[in-house]
Amino acid sequence: MSDIARIRAAAGRLAGHARRTPLLSSPFLDEIAGRHVLVKAECLQHTGSFKYRGARAAVSAMAPDARAKGVIAYSSGNHAQGVAQAARDFAVPAVIVMPADAPRLKIANTRALGAEVVLYDRAGGESREDVGARIARDRGLTLIKPYDAPEVIAGQGTCGLEIARQAREAGVEAADVLVCCGGGGLTGGIALALEAEAPGLRPRPCEPAGFDDTARSLAAGRIERNATESGSICDAILTPLPGELTFPILRRLCGPGLVVTEDECLHAMALAFHRLKVVAEPGGAVALAAALFRPKEIAGDAVIVTISGGNVDAQVFEIALRQHGHTP
Amino acid sequence: MSDIARIRAAAGRLAGHARRTPLLSSPFLDEIAGRHVLVKAECLQHTGSFKYRGARAAVSAMAPDARAKGVIAYSSGNHAQGVAQAARDFAVPAVIVMPADAPRLKIANTRALGAEVVLYDRAGGESREDVGARIARDRGLTLIKPYDAPEVIAGQGTCGLEIARQAREAGVEAADVLVCCGGGGLTGGIALALEAEAPGLRPRPCEPAGFDDTARSLAAGRIERNATESGSICDAILTPLPGELTFPILRRLCGPGLVVTEDECLHAMALAFHRLKVVAEPGGAVALAAALFRPKEIAGDAVIVTISGGNVDAQVFEIALRQHGHTP
Repeated sequence: MSDIARIRAAAGRLAGHARRTPLLSSPFLDEIAGRHVLVKAECLQHTGSFKYRGARAAVSAMAPDARAKGVIAYSSGNHAQGVAQAARDFAVPAVIVMPADAPRLKIANTRALGAEVVLYDRAGGESREDVGARIARDRGLTLIKPYDAPEVIAGQGTCGLEIARQAREAGVEAADVLVCCGGGGLTGGIALALEAEAPGLRPRPCEPAGFDDTARSLAAGRIERNATESGSICDAILTPLPGELTFPILRRLCGPGLVVTEDECLHAMALAFHRLKVVAEPGGAVALAAALFRPKEIAGDAVIVTISGGNVDAQVFEIALRQHGHTP
Repeated sequence: MSDIARIRAAAGRLAGHARRTPLLSSPFLDEIAGRHVLVKAECLQHTGSFKYRGARAAVSAMAPDARAKGVIAYSSGNHAQGVAQAARDFAVPAVIVMPADAPRLKIANTRALGAEVVLYDRAGGESREDVGARIARDRGLTLIKPYDAPEVIAGQGTCGLEIARQAREAGVEAADVLVCCGGGGLTGGIALALEAEAPGLRPRPCEPAGFDDTARSLAAGRIERNATESGSICDAILTPLPGELTFPILRRLCGPGLVVTEDECLHAMALAFHRLKVVAEPGGAVALAAALFRPKEIAGDAVIVTISGGNVDAQVFEIALRQHGHTP
């Protein structure tokens, strides 16, 4: 099956389940960016991020026998909630392997979505892959990877189909499409969808400074790693390096990466609060930050950006409002 | 023209301009409410509230000659921004009469939307009606009332058309529809739309305690006033009494009013932040608060609520997060 056929098939399976998230805008953001800014608000997706698309696409593509045994994922974040919700949709078991020191709220939320949370001791030298592989083998569970899996990429690509259509409805035929990028599942899926449906729209990955593995890899023409794996408020989109399946897609279809600071992400969160009335998490605000604060690196009269998720603690959100929110 | 014909005509004029706002939900809210909660997120409308619908409906219904001279409105809040944006859409002048002690941010936002802001001295005994009438006469401006005007009610009714269709798509045929209620423009417009398009959906006005003029008026069968006109954080939906045009509509079509506390509104704002990823203003959260915290006053397996706006200062939002947001 071709990539776009797989995305269209995923869209068919997601119809009536995933939300067609709105494309928002504000004249106030246009003025800051110096061009028309169209914001694909995936924070309004079920479970608060785009991850539900890929998770539901993967679970719905499984053979019924395998699906009935259940699924497993490694994640302390948005992928965990996406997989938990998708498994719940089909009334099949989900096991989520999380570090024992994950935020209690995230553990509670994942459990509340019906998943079984298995904690492993990150400091004790246990590998989550070992823990997960044993459980998967014992119970016959299928692993749902966060990005390096064709059906997951296809599911995220359904966001790209919507962008292609919504941009056309808004009269935008040519523009950069800025995508919050971790492992490249969303960026790659959107890139494949736009290649087929809106070739005038050019996807570009956006990352926080210090975790710009994709931007550097695209510039170098080969996969490069981040120096560290944690330590950013943009936790939702931190990955050690681009994926094996996703990087070749990005290399073929994406323009240069954009890199923003954490403070610019907090500023973009405050502006999304004031001007769009949506909640963005720090990692979900990198693309909006790039549109607003890197205008010279972008071409054209319009720019499309994703807000990839909104799962942010109140404490972090308050920091964004205090630092940037009182005089927008 | 019948009421529903006027609403349908307004919908035709708003197509491609007003947003079809999404109907959101979360299993976490369903659990609190004890039933399925569907949230019409009008905070995502242009200018951050439903007021854009009525303003654009009114301005677009004007004769071109009169419209070219411009429009005028009295408001320091959401209606001001809606009228300013609607006038800007048609490139005609807008004058907004505001008290001189209105928040500077609201004055700045209204000016940034292209309107001329005329300040009057609330303490000095000047009546805004006198100020506005003089300017309107001198310049030939047309007054756009906030709710007691057929085209404004029809514009707000387009939100009801969308609710009727989205409820049907969600499989909900019978439910209470809780509407944040000030002067009754949104409640009345939605009520007229539902009467024609979804008679199984019953509109019910929601208000903050101490400003429950509509609930008391419905119970008494005649218009009753609030004891005071200010002093609530729910400023967006405070009016002294139900409208002359809107109250008969509400009396004919609405179920009993629901009343919530300010603290419940703050709690609902924090839950909208965590579970829906949208920004609600205090007055915009009264209906969600009623759905979550007055379950015994509501009938049925599902309830539909409006979030009528999201224009809230960061300081007030931080209070909601601090008091209710850290452990949702």
